[in-house]
Amino acid sequence: MKLYDSVRAPNPRRVRIFLREKGIEIPTVTVDLAAFEHREAAFAQVNPLRRTPALELDDGTVITESVAICRYFEEIHPHPVLFGRTPLEKALVEMWNRRAEFELFVPITHTFRHGHPGMAKHEVPQLAEWAEINRPKIMEGLALLNEQLSKTLFLAGDAFSIADITALCAIDFMKPTKTKVPDEMMSLLRWHQEVSSRPSALA
Amino acid sequence: MKLYDSVRAPNPRRVRIFLREKGIEIPTVTVDLAAFEHREAAFAQVNPLRRTPALELDDGTVITESVAICRYFEEIHPHPVLFGRTPLEKALVEMWNRRAEFELFVPITHTFRHGHPGMAKHEVPQLAEWAEINRPKIMEGLALLNEQLSKTLFLAGDAFSIADITALCAIDFMKPTKTKVPDEMMSLLRWHQEVSSRPSALA
Repeated sequence: MKLYDSVRAPNPRRVRIFLREKGIEIPTVTVDLAAFEHREAAFAQVNPLRRTPALELDDGTVITESVAICRYFEEIHPHPVLFGRTPLEKALVEMWNRRAEFELFVPITHTFRHGHPGMAKHEVPQLAEWAEINRPKIMEGLALLNEQLSKTLFLAGDAFSIADITALCAIDFMKPTKTKVPDEMMSLLRWHQEVSSRPSALA
Repeated sequence: MKLYDSVRAPNPRRVRIFLREKGIEIPTVTVDLAAFEHREAAFAQVNPLRRTPALELDDGTVITESVAICRYFEEIHPHPVLFGRTPLEKALVEMWNRRAEFELFVPITHTFRHGHPGMAKHEVPQLAEWAEINRPKIMEGLALLNEQLSKTLFLAGDAFSIADITALCAIDFMKPTKTKVPDEMMSLLRWHQEVSSRPSALA
């Protein structure tokens, strides 16, 4: 199998961190988003949606969507468990992964893609008002996570999970939106320091 | 346990169809979205994000996010399988469920919430340009599903799954956006007729 990967973009990083946590190494092909390699016909053969990451299996089957790729590896390489162990844990990991996506990752992405001049060629049409509607939602998403992390060690409870990976990649992608985690969100900052100090965070 | 449910909204319907497919019956509490009951302080105690559906377990734990609720039931009541059986099936169900969400459900929701006069009190601020940017994306999402369904019986392969439930609820929610599946998308229409004829679709 091989992984189509890209640097700097947050979604490919989710998969890289996940694989590092699992201790899995696989061949990768780097797709240069800045050079629009993902929009070329050759890559559309791999993923018609022209996005990275994408995982190509040896029989040619392609799995796209970061979480679907991670779930595949969770199934074939269950330890360490990153999607929860019991039915309730699995549900809470799913819930917090989705909350990190919809309440935080999405508004960050929209603020960046619709508000950053460098994204004008990538997001057509760019709508500045949409970026500004999303900007305050970033703070609401951060507050939701901060509140949860005042009660639990990691997002979905006592164990590190894919929900933490999603939230970490989202927060580290806030930089180009010129927003940061407010100093008063101490639980979120405590957590961010902890997950950032894991070796996987370098991925 | 009890399920906080709402009529007409597509996300609560995803859970109702899922439960009907599983043959599970549980007590429900109807939250009236038109009367803004989900915005009341009482419901914020259940789900701070003030959305339905939400599943309250007997110990008071609340699971939100439609897919997280469905995953909980998949774990405690595995048959019929709706999230895939093998590692690859599970990954492809995850992938197609997410494609149905991000490529179809999301543009339908944004076209509706930002474009329909009746949603002006629910979506603040409403941004008509954002609805119009999303409208053509609905057709792209439908085309992606149609292409897949020209090769497979159901979205993620030979077996009915949660991805089909998501796509069905999304498509049936296109009505208030005044869009419909084009006549030439025959594979999608064939599939829509099939999944709509299952008893669960009445949920």
